[in-house]
Formats: sequence, structure tokens, C-alpha cells
Amino acid sequence: MKKLGAQTMIFASPPSFLGHANVVGKKEGEGPLADSFDERSQDDTFGEATWEKSESAMQKRALTLALNKAGLAPSGLDFLFAGDLLNQCIGSAFAAREQGVPYFGLYGACSTMGEGLVLASMALDGGFGERAGVVVSSHFCSAERQYRTPLEYGGQRTPTAQWTVTGAGAAVLGAAGEGPFVTHATVGKIVDRGIRDTNNMGAAMAPAAADTILTHLRDTGRNPGFYDLIVTGDLGALGSDLLLELLQRDGIELANHADCGKLIFDPQAQDVHSGGSGCGCCASVLTGYLLNGMREGKWSNLLFCPTGALHSPVSAFQGESIPGICHAVAIAVRK
Amino acid sequence: MKKLGAQTMIFASPPSFLGHANVVGKKEGEGPLADSFDERSQDDTFGEATWEKSESAMQKRALTLALNKAGLAPSGLDFLFAGDLLNQCIGSAFAAREQGVPYFGLYGACSTMGEGLVLASMALDGGFGERAGVVVSSHFCSAERQYRTPLEYGGQRTPTAQWTVTGAGAAVLGAAGEGPFVTHATVGKIVDRGIRDTNNMGAAMAPAAADTILTHLRDTGRNPGFYDLIVTGDLGALGSDLLLELLQRDGIELANHADCGKLIFDPQAQDVHSGGSGCGCCASVLTGYLLNGMREGKWSNLLFCPTGALHSPVSAFQGESIPGICHAVAIAVRK
Repeated sequence: MKKLGAQTMIFASPPSFLGHANVVGKKEGEGPLADSFDERSQDDTFGEATWEKSESAMQKRALTLALNKAGLAPSGLDFLFAGDLLNQCIGSAFAAREQGVPYFGLYGACSTMGEGLVLASMALDGGFGERAGVVVSSHFCSAERQYRTPLEYGGQRTPTAQWTVTGAGAAVLGAAGEGPFVTHATVGKIVDRGIRDTNNMGAAMAPAAADTILTHLRDTGRNPGFYDLIVTGDLGALGSDLLLELLQRDGIELANHADCGKLIFDPQAQDVHSGGSGCGCCASVLTGYLLNGMREGKWSNLLFCPTGALHSPVSAFQGESIPGICHAVAIAVRK
Repeated sequence: MKKLGAQTMIFASPPSFLGHANVVGKKEGEGPLADSFDERSQDDTFGEATWEKSESAMQKRALTLALNKAGLAPSGLDFLFAGDLLNQCIGSAFAAREQGVPYFGLYGACSTMGEGLVLASMALDGGFGERAGVVVSSHFCSAERQYRTPLEYGGQRTPTAQWTVTGAGAAVLGAAGEGPFVTHATVGKIVDRGIRDTNNMGAAMAPAAADTILTHLRDTGRNPGFYDLIVTGDLGALGSDLLLELLQRDGIELANHADCGKLIFDPQAQDVHSGGSGCGCCASVLTGYLLNGMREGKWSNLLFCPTGALHSPVSAFQGESIPGICHAVAIAVRK
């Protein structure tokens, strides 16, 4: 059986992480997870003349590091799944254009790492290849000017706002390997509860996270306690509280919840208000802190649940609410 | 064997088109393929207050029509693969948000219909579901103001420019069915030959089309003549000439080439310069003219090769060249 319920897949031959790596910016490298990052840049330009090119360079570097750890050249990949937050996903296209790897461009907003892991796992478990790469990125400076205001404007931020992580995370999955393994995936539906405040994305995404986590638990018949950690992508402080409240209404107490947006910055020392966000947030936390922790024996079973807000500045200006999505990926040290 | 060469998959249980449909705008409905479209709108606003909402409404309508033809409700889909050209792919997210279907957002520029068909076929042939939807769209008015100039500006167009199709195409694929069938897929690599003229996307994409078609023929051991038609997405008139020239250099004469960008408009009567473009171009031609023609016995084997330009206005302003991509999907009346 490859399907549990309507939304959850169980992988007959769980794909294995062969390599994973990340590159982050200066602020992220000064946060609580500093030691878990492969590269902490002191220069967020990454030597490039524009922020978009900086993001692309950072994403390319993360993939190279993950490939190195897996002992592979780009030609060792059957597929590359990539995405970012930039208009037309140029961060990814320009990072991938010299790699010569069959390419799938994804747009799942900050959930893209989850979307990529799900599709890569389907490709490998489906027997279509031996190795697949997943890489995503976000950059505070390219995001800020695209989504909000020019950096030079120095606008105030509301307490519910989140800080886009400058970071890229890459994973190389293999059909065979020593683990950790991707054992299950629950593909999310779009959930929109009418939140219109683009400075409160945690609230916009929490209902999608609740929906996907509940569906995953129902489909698999697992209790939340099966997992050592249930880790959402970037709900931040407020969104995390809302998630717990929504789940409580359904009789679920999450005692083992963590959120990458809360983990990556120090709320006291780093002034990021509600926490981190961006594709690179959960991707850099997964490919460092979380997977390293699994390898070190800290955790045996994780449910990785990246969240995304599928809106745009144009949809917001036109008065639209913010559609949210969340995919859940079960990762286990043993098959 | 599920893989031929490095880039081509052969589907052991070829997914079948269960339903396919399209909705186009006024200009497209006045073109040579008028009779092949399911709905030709006389009002490109589709009753909405903004062009982005119009595009979303059109995309949603196309999916509904395809589901109707397949005799399915949205809940009959295991997955929905969707994409468009708008920043953050809002055309698709807002079209899908009330459908309640597990959702994968894609960004492959004008190649997205191909990317979606490939991923949907992998999902079904891999055994992860019974039915998958693919839907993409483009709208002249939302694209023009996002990529070029406000409509009211009335800018002149260069002879190599293409006209973004107002159209959406949707397909419902099933693990079982009567065909036509998706038998093979060649996933494209990004190819960038340094073209910087954003008014000449045919030239930017032709090298990617040549690369993918050559790879497909090599991987499958097929001659071009195996196919009744080899149909590129939206190379337009100039890009099509360049494709044929590039293939000739490799000793391949394509006597059976067609291009959706050339097919959809009348070059004399409709003043579109080099032809049509946009995700909706090849999607509406595939889901009408091409698949209907296969059902009528006109063609038995098609190679559908959507092309995409993975750039953005920002990358162009920053002096970057235009990365191209092309996926090839082999469609056969019989398995």
C-alpha cells in the first residue's frame, strides 16, 4: 500500500538523505543555531552586485556543499527540485542553469522545502531515479524589497511581523542509503481562513499547519507522541501559539512542537519580533540542526511540516486574504 | 526499466487522459483553432475586477470543465499540479484554494504544462494515486502589465515579440483509462546561450528545445518520424526556425514540427508578430486541438515539448541572459 487515507503516502523504499547542507547570512550565523550551519557568511552580498544574484550564489553554494557531502557531482543527480520566493523563482533558475541537471521549478512559498522533499521522494520511491536534489533559498534583502519596502526606507515592523531568513538549504536524497529516511509524506491542501494582514503570516498559515498535521495523524494512525518533534516551518511565535490552540480544539495536545522560525533567532537578543520566515528558514534548520541531531541520536522520528503563504503583494493590494499551505514529511533514523 | 538514458522516463503503466479542457479569451477564440476550445470568452475580465482575478477565474473554470469531462468532482483528484506566470503564482493558488485537493505549485514559466504532466505521470505510474489534475494559465493583460508596460501605455512591439495567450488548459490524468496515454517523459535541463533580448524569447528557448528533443530521440532510440507531430510550446515563428536550424546541425531534419505559438494565432490577420506565448498557449492547444485530434484519429503519436524562459523583469534589468527549459512528453493513442 502506498497511500494512507486521501493525502498521505507511505514510501515502500524510504529515500535516504545522502547529504545535506546549508549556507546562511550574518544574522542567522549569530543566532542560537550558529553551530549547526555549514557556512555562515560575514557578507550577505556573497560577492555579488545585486541581492538577487547574492541569493542565487548562496543557493548554488548550499547545493554544492550537499553534493560534496554525498560524494557526488551535479551529474550524479537524476533530478533537481528547486524554489525560492523571488518573482519567477529566479534565485533557483540562475543557481541551476550551469548544473546540467534535469530541473523542476517549484513554487510553494516558504513550504517549498517540504514540497521538494515530497516530490523527490515520490520520484525515487517510484523508481524513476537513484538520486534527487532539493534546494531552496530566501534572502532578507531580496525579499524585503520585493515584498515590503526598499531596505533604505527603514520601515518599522509590527510585533506580529517575521524576519525573512537569509539562508539556503539543500538535501540530496538517494533510493538507497543509511538514513535518515523519508518514510511518509502528507501533501497539504490550501487553507484560507480569511487573514488579510500580510504582517501576520503566522496567523495565515497556522490553520493549514493544523489541517495537515491532523490529517497526517489520522491517516497514519499515529499519536503526536510517536514523534520526538513535530516541527513546523515558519509559523513564528504567534502562529505557533495559534497552531497549538487550533489543535487543542480537536483534542490534540502537542507537547513536542517546535518551529523553525522560533528556533533560528534569539527572541531577546535579535529583535525579529515574531521569528524567522522564508524558504531558507526551515530548509537551513532541517539540513543542519534537525538532521544533524538525528544523526547524533538526539531524535529518532521527526515530522517536518513546512508552511507557506501563497499570496503576493498584488493579491494583498487587491484586498485578498492569504491562502496557506503545509506539507508534512515524516523522517526516521530507521526505516 | 523505468529510465532510458539520463533524462527520459518510460512509464510502465502509462497514465491516461481522462478529461481535458480549456478556456480562452476573445482574441484566441477568433484564431484558427477557435473550434477546438471548450469556452471562448467574449469578455477577458471573466467578470472579475482585476486581471489577476480574471486569470484565476479562467484557470478554475478550465479545471472544472476537465473534471466534468472526466466525470469527477475535485475530491476525485489525489493531487493537483498547477502554475502560471504571475509573481508568486497567485493565478493558481487562488484558483485552487477552494478545491480542497492536495496541491503542488509549480514554476516552469511557459513550460509548466509539460512539467505538470511529467510530475503527474510520475505520481500515478509510481503508484501514489489514481487521478491527478494539471492546470496552468496565462492572461495577456496580467502578463503585459507585470512583464512589460501598463496596457494603457500602448507600447510598440518588436517583430520578434510574442503575444501572451489569454487561456487556461487543464488535464485530468488517471492511472487507468482508455487513452490517449503519456508513455514517456524527458525532463529538461536549463540551457542558456546568452540571449538577453526579452522581446525575443523564441531565440532564448530554442536551444533548450533542441537539447531536450535530441536527448529524447537519443534516449528512446526513436527517429523523429516515429511521431506524427513534434510540437513545441511557444517558440513562435523565429524560435521555430532556430530550432530547425539547430537540429539540422546535429543531422536531424524535423519534417513534422509544429509550434503551439504559431498554431494559435493567424499571422496575417491577428498581428501578433512572432506568435503566441504564455503557459496558456501550449496548454490550450494541447487540451483542445492536439488531444481532440488524437481522439479523432488524426495522429497516433505526439511529442509535446513545452518551452519556458526562466527569467524575470528583475533579472533582465540586471543584465542577465535568459535561461530556457523544455520538457518532452510522449503521448500515444495506444499504450
